[in-house]
Amino acid sequence: MASVFGENIKISIFGESHGPAIGVVVEGFDAGFKVDTEKLQEFMSLRAPGGKMSTKRKEADQVKFLAGIKDDVICGSTFSAIIENTDCRSGDYSNLYDVPRPGHADYTAQMKYGGSQDVRGGGHFSGRLTAPLCIAGGIARQILEKKGIEIYARIKCIGKENDPAPTKYPELCEMKKIDARFPVYNADAAERFEKVVEDARMDGDSLGGVIECAVFGVPTGLGGPLFDGIEGRISQAVFGIPAVKGVEFGSGFGGSQMYGSENNDGFYYDENGLVKTYTNNHGGILGGISSGMPIYFNVAFKPTPSIAKVQDSISLKQKENTKLEIKGRHDPCVVLRAVPCVISAAALSIYDLIKD
Amino acid sequence: MASVFGENIKISIFGESHGPAIGVVVEGFDAGFKVDTEKLQEFMSLRAPGGKMSTKRKEADQVKFLAGIKDDVICGSTFSAIIENTDCRSGDYSNLYDVPRPGHADYTAQMKYGGSQDVRGGGHFSGRLTAPLCIAGGIARQILEKKGIEIYARIKCIGKENDPAPTKYPELCEMKKIDARFPVYNADAAERFEKVVEDARMDGDSLGGVIECAVFGVPTGLGGPLFDGIEGRISQAVFGIPAVKGVEFGSGFGGSQMYGSENNDGFYYDENGLVKTYTNNHGGILGGISSGMPIYFNVAFKPTPSIAKVQDSISLKQKENTKLEIKGRHDPCVVLRAVPCVISAAALSIYDLIKD
Amino acid sequence: MASVFGENIKISIFGESHGPAIGVVVEGFDAGFKVDTEKLQEFMSLRAPGGKMSTKRKEADQVKFLAGIKDDVICGSTFSAIIENTDCRSGDYSNLYDVPRPGHADYTAQMKYGGSQDVRGGGHFSGRLTAPLCIAGGIARQILEKKGIEIYARIKCIGKENDPAPTKYPELCEMKKIDARFPVYNADAAERFEKVVEDARMDGDSLGGVIECAVFGVPTGLGGPLFDGIEGRISQAVFGIPAVKGVEFGSGFGGSQMYGSENNDGFYYDENGLVKTYTNNHGGILGGISSGMPIYFNVAFKPTPSIAKVQDSISLKQKENTKLEIKGRHDPCVVLRAVPCVISAAALSIYDLIKD
Amino acid sequence: MASVFGENIKISIFGESHGPAIGVVVEGFDAGFKVDTEKLQEFMSLRAPGGKMSTKRKEADQVKFLAGIKDDVICGSTFSAIIENTDCRSGDYSNLYDVPRPGHADYTAQMKYGGSQDVRGGGHFSGRLTAPLCIAGGIARQILEKKGIEIYARIKCIGKENDPAPTKYPELCEMKKIDARFPVYNADAAERFEKVVEDARMDGDSLGGVIECAVFGVPTGLGGPLFDGIEGRISQAVFGIPAVKGVEFGSGFGGSQMYGSENNDGFYYDENGLVKTYTNNHGGILGGISSGMPIYFNVAFKPTPSIAKVQDSISLKQKENTKLEIKGRHDPCVVLRAVPCVISAAALSIYDLIKD
Repeated sequence: MASVFGENIKISIFGESHGPAIGVVVEGFDAGFKVDTEKLQEFMSLRAPGGKMSTKRKEADQVKFLAGIKDDVICGSTFSAIIENTDCRSGDYSNLYDVPRPGHADYTAQMKYGGSQDVRGGGHFSGRLTAPLCIAGGIARQILEKKGIEIYARIKCIGKENDPAPTKYPELCEMKKIDARFPVYNADAAERFEKVVEDARMDGDSLGGVIECAVFGVPTGLGGPLFDGIEGRISQAVFGIPAVKGVEFGSGFGGSQMYGSENNDGFYYDENGLVKTYTNNHGGILGGISSGMPIYFNVAFKPTPSIAKVQDSISLKQKENTKLEIKGRHDPCVVLRAVPCVISAAALSIYDLIKD
Repeated sequence: MASVFGENIKISIFGESHGPAIGVVVEGFDAGFKVDTEKLQEFMSLRAPGGKMSTKRKEADQVKFLAGIKDDVICGSTFSAIIENTDCRSGDYSNLYDVPRPGHADYTAQMKYGGSQDVRGGGHFSGRLTAPLCIAGGIARQILEKKGIEIYARIKCIGKENDPAPTKYPELCEMKKIDARFPVYNADAAERFEKVVEDARMDGDSLGGVIECAVFGVPTGLGGPLFDGIEGRISQAVFGIPAVKGVEFGSGFGGSQMYGSENNDGFYYDENGLVKTYTNNHGGILGGISSGMPIYFNVAFKPTPSIAKVQDSISLKQKENTKLEIKGRHDPCVVLRAVPCVISAAALSIYDLIKD
Repeated sequence: MASVFGENIKISIFGESHGPAIGVVVEGFDAGFKVDTEKLQEFMSLRAPGGKMSTKRKEADQVKFLAGIKDDVICGSTFSAIIENTDCRSGDYSNLYDVPRPGHADYTAQMKYGGSQDVRGGGHFSGRLTAPLCIAGGIARQILEKKGIEIYARIKCIGKENDPAPTKYPELCEMKKIDARFPVYNADAAERFEKVVEDARMDGDSLGGVIECAVFGVPTGLGGPLFDGIEGRISQAVFGIPAVKGVEFGSGFGGSQMYGSENNDGFYYDENGLVKTYTNNHGGILGGISSGMPIYFNVAFKPTPSIAKVQDSISLKQKENTKLEIKGRHDPCVVLRAVPCVISAAALSIYDLIKD
Repeated sequence: MASVFGENIKISIFGESHGPAIGVVVEGFDAGFKVDTEKLQEFMSLRAPGGKMSTKRKEADQVKFLAGIKDDVICGSTFSAIIENTDCRSGDYSNLYDVPRPGHADYTAQMKYGGSQDVRGGGHFSGRLTAPLCIAGGIARQILEKKGIEIYARIKCIGKENDPAPTKYPELCEMKKIDARFPVYNADAAERFEKVVEDARMDGDSLGGVIECAVFGVPTGLGGPLFDGIEGRISQAVFGIPAVKGVEFGSGFGGSQMYGSENNDGFYYDENGLVKTYTNNHGGILGGISSGMPIYFNVAFKPTPSIAKVQDSISLKQKENTKLEIKGRHDPCVVLRAVPCVISAAALSIYDLIKD
């Protein structure tokens, strides 16, 4: 078991899509830090349902602190925050114990929990559980920002459409310009992304995509060798986001096709006497340890498994093959809403590393 | 800190490339299991130096049990095994405290440990540290095999060369046929791989590649949601192998370009009444939990950073830019020797999950 | 940091005495187990304020499940329960940032959290935080009971008064007879305990005591050597209860004065062919591993630090010595209310061990 | 499973009494610290066999660093040290799989590991396993000393004999005077202790005792509430020492008989403006957090279970009651040799806390 994330900070997420509330318990965040709750709520809204690419479910995702934060200031030991579920229509999901949806956790959860899992809306496996992740991650990002560490992410591609970047690895000045509400470099990319998603939705289908994340201002010397490497730590957080199926750092899979002489990043002293590398194919991490260069990684999201098209499935009760037509409200593409989730995973990982 | 791997089994790796010994302490392996030491040594030999793609360093990598294994039988609590380092030529590495090698951990370790790290042969960051990983992993694989779980891996590509597979996702019968000493499907692939690596070596350069790993016979219901997912667990182990920069499960990054209707794997009952999926884009994992289908993942290795070509670096002592020409014995491509390491990472992850 | 308890189950407790709510997140409890909520509430009531020995604060301590339990059945992954704080009179505590109460965490929390801690009612350090412990522990105890493991505890002494036991180590049949609402063997002990506590209260003073706990039906072979021993595991849970300052297993400190020939417990086969020991000075644990005999341990509670008498303290603001007179509602003796807490600590430890 | 100790440092101990070697892997110790190996060996010698109270087994306990320490300097990530077993006479123990020794782990290990455990000399459960604990603890103590934290321990009582202290709680100046080779306050106590142990030995019997440990110079604000408290952390380490059956902090069990007004420790500012308490019944820990006063705790050791007297036992093979007469070399009292073990447990706990 390992649903608690973190070595030095601890995050426990709880809740189901259609239960009374979802929430998070957090330990180890800096006592005395004053949370900018307005900024947090704004960050949460990037993940909240609404907009063309999203489910029709309406949730304000209003964060309510239960404990450990007084007058917006972190008291010191443990804090807890919840979001009450409001717009649940559980009637839509009654069939799922019997006929599991392809690409979902219905079948595997059934096997693991013997039918005791709350299946409504995906239960504990719902993308909705990323809301508590974003509470913890959003606060961690605020704390990191005060320490000079800034995290940005953008949509790199959706389906086969992509948004070409001005440089191979994103620069802080470029990423700061990006509109957080639809984080792409080029205005036409937003349009193209919206169009392919809308086309998929109209066709009863869905799309996935890739999010690129960059962490600027990371001190040198975080992380460590072997199982203590930054890549492993960030991965564990990132794979905590439902629908993630791949992660790569720096040149990643592309780098595996390069020669060493191309992929190696030569060192130099910059004009301020700081050690830099000419390129950043190592994605800011060498030997599992931060080099001081920005940390870059890409995250692959599979297409939303809930689609309107008829699919092959089985009836667990009848023990026979059957067809399934999914009803309910679903995102044709989670990638846009997943951006704050990836940022949160990065923020929590880096914050955890800094506390080493 | 997290150099200890595992929730239910525990692996602690220690050693430096040129110290007296490297080794591993292991806890939680099945008491009473009799290790096939000959088979283990054979498995170790796949990782050991030797052969065209490899460093000229000669190490028999003879496993020596210090404790916890008596007459080849696991006693029950903790066991420890070491490999004594024999063929060390430390004179080769004296310059590394001053002029860090691009793509290596020299600089980051220097920043983290303030110059106390043992830099000889890469010290604790050396690929040599995967030998203890293979001791633990090799034994875990033997235990899993007794439980009906089989793990295979093969070289998918080296540089731009690849070895086309007979089916999109490997099948047990296909993978069993593969020669473990050079795990490719097609004989010509071995030749092509050897050629590009030899060409790179002759050119003072190096190559990376991708390894595909498959785990057959995994019971349904292992793993869990969020940070407890199998993807995150395997990733943490896999990123513990030096030079790994990416990991993807099932359709992975490719799947992010597909439609949901393509990527979803429809369920059906097979002739024996077992639940299967027609395809396996989910790589055997749904919602972080095993589906009973084989677990598939790909691992991206960067090209060996040690190359003979002159590179840009810095002198930390002089605080100025300089050029570096690396001497010493190095692998022009680690991918072949990394195959047992990936198998070991998989074996340890799956064994850990089974013990949940 | 380690506020998360458990290796195989995970418990995270949050809340402050006077915040909106206190609660717990629990992971790893048996999916499908149906919680007897009435019995749980009854167990909670043993800890709740009320009665002669207790604070005048009134809290129904009504358990509210936020997630992970549906129709009283544990869904499987994580569940969360809270108790809303109702009867808070925070005005009583305003002085505590300046003048720390002797024997309390006011000063040490101030040093740790720099004044950000919520000091009202003891904040996160309040005995009130044992309520969430009892939610998790009460449910764990129910689960264990189904597995044939029964846990009882009784007041052994309060101040210098004690309740003589019919046998050196309690037997299940004896402990089952005890009234959970005031767990003593002899009726007159209850009276004597109440009298010394009332006398202390009238005198503006307080008392501590010792609780004895016994776990019956523990399977042989739980725990392990060194840091994995049952004693260390139970201790970590027990010292999580505020005011605990000592713990001993079996003959404990008394045993350290005995000869080996007295303290050793000879083995024998009982009439059913089961291995037993004639005595139980080992408290059911040998080499950190359960022997199958009942596990016994004693827990020492210090006297409640909140007393009405004038005490020496300091003004942190004025940086000078001062006198302190504590107001507010306090327990003259926590021992009675601590009984379910000790049971909970035992239940969670044993449940965690069983899941190894 | 939890044989790995530590949150921020990690200690994994391995080995069996009669295997090739015993050892430890340590992670997280300060890179660059130069170990005083002579002082370490001297510390080890306090635990090593020899002397009147001890087994006749002869072991030099020579520490050999396998990795991670170069020229006596800690490299930074993981280090490993072993002690090779030399004077093993395994013939003495052949009967132990069948007839378990009372008070030992023979029976419980048999139940846990199904007969695969190495039973020779107590195997992994032998007191000999405290030697690796002392390697890690001895180094941790050296590091702490550099940070102004000093740890001492003394024998408080053996059997019914005790060594009266000059003050209720030991003071640094007093403890510094004590001879580490036989740590008592009064010369006559040493004689009395030796006499009762010798008498017990002559009688084929054994004795236990109590060790008092004090940690001076602990910074304020270490530890935390609930499961994060210092008491729980130290306990986990201390119960890792074989034969420990109780631990108490400050006034401990005695304090549970006091009134709050007696047990509370009033605060004051000393002449240097530092916050102190007049007494130290809290043992330097309030609310699980260090107060800056010395940390005090007592540890109860049971009498050595190996005695020459005939004892009741069973034959597991014959499934019948039998008598047992133990042969071999054993300590009539482990308390003297356990002093460095308690110091080591304290050093590792405090070091771990400081790294929080």
